[in-house]
Amino acid sequence: MKIAILGTGLVGETLGSKLVALGHEVRMGSRTANNEKAAAWTQKAGARASQGTFTDAAAFGELVFNCTAGTASLEAVKAAGAQALDGKVLVDVSNPLDFSKGFPPTLSVCNTDSLGEQLQRAFPDVKVVKALNTVTASVMVEPSKLPGPTELFICGNDAGAKKQVTQVLTEGFGWKRIIDLGDITGARAMEMSLPLWIRLYQTLGTADFNFQLIRA
Amino acid sequence: MKIAILGTGLVGETLGSKLVALGHEVRMGSRTANNEKAAAWTQKAGARASQGTFTDAAAFGELVFNCTAGTASLEAVKAAGAQALDGKVLVDVSNPLDFSKGFPPTLSVCNTDSLGEQLQRAFPDVKVVKALNTVTASVMVEPSKLPGPTELFICGNDAGAKKQVTQVLTEGFGWKRIIDLGDITGARAMEMSLPLWIRLYQTLGTADFNFQLIRA
Repeated sequence: MKIAILGTGLVGETLGSKLVALGHEVRMGSRTANNEKAAAWTQKAGARASQGTFTDAAAFGELVFNCTAGTASLEAVKAAGAQALDGKVLVDVSNPLDFSKGFPPTLSVCNTDSLGEQLQRAFPDVKVVKALNTVTASVMVEPSKLPGPTELFICGNDAGAKKQVTQVLTEGFGWKRIIDLGDITGARAMEMSLPLWIRLYQTLGTADFNFQLIRA
Repeated sequence: MKIAILGTGLVGETLGSKLVALGHEVRMGSRTANNEKAAAWTQKAGARASQGTFTDAAAFGELVFNCTAGTASLEAVKAAGAQALDGKVLVDVSNPLDFSKGFPPTLSVCNTDSLGEQLQRAFPDVKVVKALNTVTASVMVEPSKLPGPTELFICGNDAGAKKQVTQVLTEGFGWKRIIDLGDITGARAMEMSLPLWIRLYQTLGTADFNFQLIRA
């Protein structure tokens, strides 16, 4: 499949490299073509990897991952443009973390709204699926690095889009437990779990963790 | 030990009954003495159970549990009064859930502040420990009802207070895994995890669940 990665950070690189390794053609998009990090990634990731502007990537991809910093995501997806994204599935991996006052960050949107919902409202013809934002990049693409099965959450308004993303998560990345939290308002719950993740990261001294649901 | 329970809801009843069963003397406090629910609980819970006003209970208890509705907690603890609480440990079990617009609730405070911190600021001579707010009442007092060990979080500014509460949680209630998230600002993370808990409650159709931390 042709896949777009919006963003050149660790999450974008990690997802992009994994998707290339799985046999997909991946184009990494950034604000400008020939972004230094995107170009370096393309060199490293091999023949199925390419790079360009946000619009280049979005137009190329049949499936689009938003891996930009959450506070810049709306702007980045607007730069990609509604035309390039029209009717496509946008997997929103980002978190609206505001680091402007240092660490730990606060959320730039929460409680009565979420970044996932903001993206869906801004692009009503795009099928936004929130996923993967609750684990660190290396766990996203290799959940088996943790010594036990853990939960991944997913939400979005379009059942077909969630099915398509779930297939990439299970068959591609190896996730075995995916909980569908319903429509895109579930993004509030998923994004608001970040403060606990960050506090645990500070407490445990590692990002390599996740949770297993235990129910009676 | 003499223990105060502020609040007559399901959480207060469940904690109160368990603490009585463990051999403690428990006084349930509410806005008025002879509150109908508190009186009924006292009848049911037996000789070591008593009831009175918030102040009666707080003055009685060596250890105080805040089990009032989160949006009423500041008012309730103020009604108990700084004098009755002076120097004591206040276990804040509540969540700032605002149901005024229906279900699911939003949080009345979050992101840059928390109910735990508000209580600590309002009562600087009280040792506020946030605990138990991330699980349903029956799991609080019987974690072994879940088919596997799960995590409980705790935070607060006073190490001795956290040690005392941890002893009740482990030796009394049977919790085996307690993660200390540091000072009372950890209450933001603990309270902001509620939207995910609520969404899962809606999705799973049960409140009898919790999470086990899986780390590499």
